[in-house]
Amino acid sequence: MAKKSAHVRSIRDVLRIHPEGVDLAKVDPAAAPVGPTTKAEAAKDLEAIGVELDRLQENLYAEGVGGGRRRVLVVLQGMDTSGKGGTISHVAGLMNPQGLRVVSFKKPTRAELSHDFLWRIRRQVPGPGLIGFFDRSHYEDVLVPRVDKLVPPSTWRARYRQINDFEAELAESGVTILKCFLHISPERQKERLVARLRTPEKLWKYNPSDLAVRAKWSLYQQAYADLLVTCSTDVAPWFAVPSDRKWYRNWAVAQLLLRTMRDLAPTYPEPAYDPAVELARLTEADPLR
Amino acid sequence: MAKKSAHVRSIRDVLRIHPEGVDLAKVDPAAAPVGPTTKAEAAKDLEAIGVELDRLQENLYAEGVGGGRRRVLVVLQGMDTSGKGGTISHVAGLMNPQGLRVVSFKKPTRAELSHDFLWRIRRQVPGPGLIGFFDRSHYEDVLVPRVDKLVPPSTWRARYRQINDFEAELAESGVTILKCFLHISPERQKERLVARLRTPEKLWKYNPSDLAVRAKWSLYQQAYADLLVTCSTDVAPWFAVPSDRKWYRNWAVAQLLLRTMRDLAPTYPEPAYDPAVELARLTEADPLR
Repeated sequence: MAKKSAHVRSIRDVLRIHPEGVDLAKVDPAAAPVGPTTKAEAAKDLEAIGVELDRLQENLYAEGVGGGRRRVLVVLQGMDTSGKGGTISHVAGLMNPQGLRVVSFKKPTRAELSHDFLWRIRRQVPGPGLIGFFDRSHYEDVLVPRVDKLVPPSTWRARYRQINDFEAELAESGVTILKCFLHISPERQKERLVARLRTPEKLWKYNPSDLAVRAKWSLYQQAYADLLVTCSTDVAPWFAVPSDRKWYRNWAVAQLLLRTMRDLAPTYPEPAYDPAVELARLTEADPLR
Repeated sequence: MAKKSAHVRSIRDVLRIHPEGVDLAKVDPAAAPVGPTTKAEAAKDLEAIGVELDRLQENLYAEGVGGGRRRVLVVLQGMDTSGKGGTISHVAGLMNPQGLRVVSFKKPTRAELSHDFLWRIRRQVPGPGLIGFFDRSHYEDVLVPRVDKLVPPSTWRARYRQINDFEAELAESGVTILKCFLHISPERQKERLVARLRTPEKLWKYNPSDLAVRAKWSLYQQAYADLLVTCSTDVAPWFAVPSDRKWYRNWAVAQLLLRTMRDLAPTYPEPAYDPAVELARLTEADPLR
């Protein structure tokens, strides 16, 4: 028994991108390589994860109130319809909104473009005690400009190092970074785009430019493979999350976050006062007469 | 029948602060002047409110994606233990975190103090399509500095006008503002402070300075009464929410927000493309070969 459990690979081992490289075409987006194998099982497990995450989040928040500097940043990237928004709804939705900082990065504005590409990102890093979710991120800056040749290769290549330096600096200042690439198949993307176009309440999620990006699928996959490998560091690892099935994607991101939070093991801060003394002040000498 | 319903006063009429003044000592923090009268009734109603809020929030978010500029800002103020955090947990928690922007304002940092008092506030105003919640706000700047005499009266008095101008400007740029004063009794505060001091997991919520503030209860009530009356404008009204009972407080804030969202009546944006054309492009001439 003990031997067997020692061989059970953890979700982080299984999904982690390693520096030796990754061939995304060989990573199955419909797989369930670890964890639940049915939607019902995943839903049940997600509920339990939610209870634990909620408790850990309160501890982290309390730590921040007590002067702690630690926080968590979950970066979500993936092709259109991979479910960045859905993941936030289902995973962040398990926790207290007061301790969350959810940011969606759109196409940079002219003002944002006048600064360094990390400028707008830095401004949105979650404060102490918070859990941040980035729906797209600084990784867009080594995707779109590369594929669409908006900047010379030397520029986007230099950004890998700039990103690694930036993330190392964040880690040193107390930010634990968890990066999830939501990996979908082109077939599943097609299904989801068709569903958006056939559902009146989903039309707003579609943009004709989605097809121009889809046309460059393999260029994007190569750009993703490069950034995943180059920027999967010990302090800010990348995980490839099979995302053809929404229930597996939600479960996997929640589970990765849970493992991260357990490692952090936040605890309520020791009070910087004596509760007994304060109780006496309040009950025996209430300052409010 | 019709006559009777015409006489049912809406929650906004009942809780709204009017310019003729308010004597907070005469506003019962334990009242339930409109709406449910039991915790069970409120819980049931809150669930229904949540379903509608969630739908309206998605519409507002979609509107923002479609280029709309409208957003909502809920400002929460109240004495310690009045339940600003609890309200966010229970009301914001009814919605999708992706469309939320929750910000807690602490004691201003040295950097923040080097700017105008509205500087840090402006930076946190929710973007288009979002619903923001402020746990404390710019109203702290007409409370603490006044009561503790940190600035001359002319300075904090001028801030009322500055705040009204600021909020009018926000309103003109598409921000609908809803301001809730969570009104509690000094007796209930005492109970809650004692509970915090007696519960290990709640010790982090207590700060010895809470008693110094409590000692100045009537000065704070006067400062609140003044800001409520002076800054309850048509574009950014103040509501006094009875908050001695948590279930009533949560219900009332959720109901006020629901009324606000219904008035906004956000709708999915008209697509700026022809869905039939896009469907054909995708299914008959899929750009991805």
